[in-house]
Amino acid sequence: MLRIITQQADVRAELLRICDRTHDEQVLHKEATVREVLQAVKRQGDKAVLHYTSEFDNQTLKPEELRVTGSELDAAYQQVSKELLQAIQLAVRQIEAFHRQRVPKSWVHFGDDDVVLGKRYTPVDRAGLYVPGGRAAYPSTVLMNAIPAKVAGVPHIVMVTPPGAGKAINPAVLVAAQEAGVQEIYRVGGAQAIAALAYGTETIPQVNVITGPGNIYVTLAKKLVYGIVGIDSLAGPSEVLIIADETANPVHVATDLLAQAEHDPMAAAILLTTDTALAKNVQVAVERQLVDHPRRIDTEKAIAHYGLIVVVESLEAAAEFSNEFAPEHLELEVKDPWAVLPNIRHAGAIFLGYSTPEAVGDYLAGPNHTLPTSGAARYASALGVETFLKHSSIIQYSQTALQKVAGAIDALATAEGLPSHADSVRRRIQQEE
Amino acid sequence: MLRIITQQADVRAELLRICDRTHDEQVLHKEATVREVLQAVKRQGDKAVLHYTSEFDNQTLKPEELRVTGSELDAAYQQVSKELLQAIQLAVRQIEAFHRQRVPKSWVHFGDDDVVLGKRYTPVDRAGLYVPGGRAAYPSTVLMNAIPAKVAGVPHIVMVTPPGAGKAINPAVLVAAQEAGVQEIYRVGGAQAIAALAYGTETIPQVNVITGPGNIYVTLAKKLVYGIVGIDSLAGPSEVLIIADETANPVHVATDLLAQAEHDPMAAAILLTTDTALAKNVQVAVERQLVDHPRRIDTEKAIAHYGLIVVVESLEAAAEFSNEFAPEHLELEVKDPWAVLPNIRHAGAIFLGYSTPEAVGDYLAGPNHTLPTSGAARYASALGVETFLKHSSIIQYSQTALQKVAGAIDALATAEGLPSHADSVRRRIQQEE
Repeated sequence: MLRIITQQADVRAELLRICDRTHDEQVLHKEATVREVLQAVKRQGDKAVLHYTSEFDNQTLKPEELRVTGSELDAAYQQVSKELLQAIQLAVRQIEAFHRQRVPKSWVHFGDDDVVLGKRYTPVDRAGLYVPGGRAAYPSTVLMNAIPAKVAGVPHIVMVTPPGAGKAINPAVLVAAQEAGVQEIYRVGGAQAIAALAYGTETIPQVNVITGPGNIYVTLAKKLVYGIVGIDSLAGPSEVLIIADETANPVHVATDLLAQAEHDPMAAAILLTTDTALAKNVQVAVERQLVDHPRRIDTEKAIAHYGLIVVVESLEAAAEFSNEFAPEHLELEVKDPWAVLPNIRHAGAIFLGYSTPEAVGDYLAGPNHTLPTSGAARYASALGVETFLKHSSIIQYSQTALQKVAGAIDALATAEGLPSHADSVRRRIQQEE
Repeated sequence: MLRIITQQADVRAELLRICDRTHDEQVLHKEATVREVLQAVKRQGDKAVLHYTSEFDNQTLKPEELRVTGSELDAAYQQVSKELLQAIQLAVRQIEAFHRQRVPKSWVHFGDDDVVLGKRYTPVDRAGLYVPGGRAAYPSTVLMNAIPAKVAGVPHIVMVTPPGAGKAINPAVLVAAQEAGVQEIYRVGGAQAIAALAYGTETIPQVNVITGPGNIYVTLAKKLVYGIVGIDSLAGPSEVLIIADETANPVHVATDLLAQAEHDPMAAAILLTTDTALAKNVQVAVERQLVDHPRRIDTEKAIAHYGLIVVVESLEAAAEFSNEFAPEHLELEVKDPWAVLPNIRHAGAIFLGYSTPEAVGDYLAGPNHTLPTSGAARYASALGVETFLKHSSIIQYSQTALQKVAGAIDALATAEGLPSHADSVRRRIQQEE
């Protein structure tokens, strides 16, 4: 049963408990395993990759089987329906169109005395995309990771995903990869895949940035290799927070809460509403929709542990609770969502109005569905083209310009006790040299 | 003696050795200490902070002494020279002017069928700036961290820096903080400072982003709390790579190499030159300038271990070696630096021409001096306003727009086995609801 809270005093503690649901101390034990995998792959390359694939994924591969072949890629198209292919193609077009907007461009600014300052943007050389396997092998994950890398102009994009039974990869994932422009795919998952991308092996190329969601082992591995490579974020279980007033449709709100809960027993689904009647009706609708839900057991777990309805006093109070939670997904199912928006400070993605269920953004509206979780929206943003770009600062001074700032640099360098810093300017402005 | 290599076969291995100089395995031991500090501060707050300040910094403070007082802030102005104050003020103006350029702005795009998509940028609520103590207590560090936070519009900026003898903080640091707009400063350093900022204590507020350089304990602590808060980067020892041709001034090049080496015995200083005579002359000039260098011992260590001159066959070859190293700072001391620039793919900051020593960028040209080290320029960029900003995706669909994509979402949700995702759209487009 989806709980309803009306006591404002309890709200903060409950939201904090849900937000912090993954910050447990038990990860230290798993971290030791992950460290071992990382070290083994770093030292033994393919051999270790194959060993752990056999151990963790129960698939015994030869090195030459790691890479998905051209004929498998071709064959995948025969295994997906025409409707699914067209849906993937529509999603590719819309995601690409959105990501092509406002891509940072290199610039220089010409100042006084021939000073030139600027930023020069370049893509990373190689990007590695992690796509989970099994039940969470989603074609949408492929698109949301590959398209920003492609738009950024990354010349070498590789994908890794764990092999399923019979060494197979989900055909929808293979089709999505090709539609997004990824041809180089390796069947390897878990911490061993992250290690292979971070260090490189005989078969799998070393990359500069690793993106994509995964289980706790993948996430720990990404955290450990961060600094050797860049990463997108440390993804936790998914979450939605819905702010609704009396005008919202309780059946729709309930479905949206379940659409989050069905992802994972750790998923969080929260409703903040100003309307007691809506709270009750959503509670009933959730129960009703759970009865014959194909993923009932896991979905019920999520609803029971990390589901919550809060009756709040005002939309302003709702916005403030939402800011404290900093949800990955925020739906504003209220009469005037644009009036609530200015009060929202932290949220990964904001879905406005009655006709914008989160699923629209999950699949094909265009914005990225890889979003900060577990309160990370307080400081982080969606995966994007920027994840695969970096810039170099550009600085050119003239002799005249250098002369004018020489005294100031001397004062600063002297204060900092760095004599050669001061000398590097002083020697350049001396006439006799 | 600064070594000269002419055998191209050795270059790659040498550059790799220097680039990887900090990726040692010995950090695991230090990590255990850092974990203990983090846990203690998380559980005991100020008490633990004061305990470790006494243990590591030899300063016994009371809780009410943690925060630097208004009268100390005022008094700092009496302890810096007029020249230094003016230099700091010039730097503030120029750094702020650069950081105000091209700040990301919120936008929405109105598409067909009343679809609205966009990005809404907001600053983090609270930022924490770490400033090292002792010999590395640099006013320039304060400016380079505080000004981007201020330009981003962060409403609450706090600074931490370890207390020196007599609990004192370097007055130039206190003046720089005030000139950059930071008034809230706590005398705490090391891992305990990072813990305090990540978890909050009775006295020190919890923040959302922690930036700034530090020693290995600070860096490890930042890596461990990453995910609870955002961080700027994992800073390693500083490095410069200079590409010079026969037109470069060997004395200037030598000074620039020493300006890097004087930072730290782990600093790296590399020259790639097409000219054998220049290589020899720089080698001699470095020896000569080292003789009475005030930081001779440490600077010589850096030059001996992580200094290198490579004679290369062409400027193209130099650019390619530089890309492999991905230096924090790159100087192009060549006749036509703008002709070399297109070949540069990875560098934190690029200094063009004879009159642009790195010191100009270190202090006051405007671009940030907090740059990716140890090869991180392959995927990362300078600290900037973006470090303190994040965005929310904005999505609004109309009933008509939803209707048009309903089939595609249904196909994708069904392929992914997420029935409530499909339902959330299906139920909304059914007329009868």
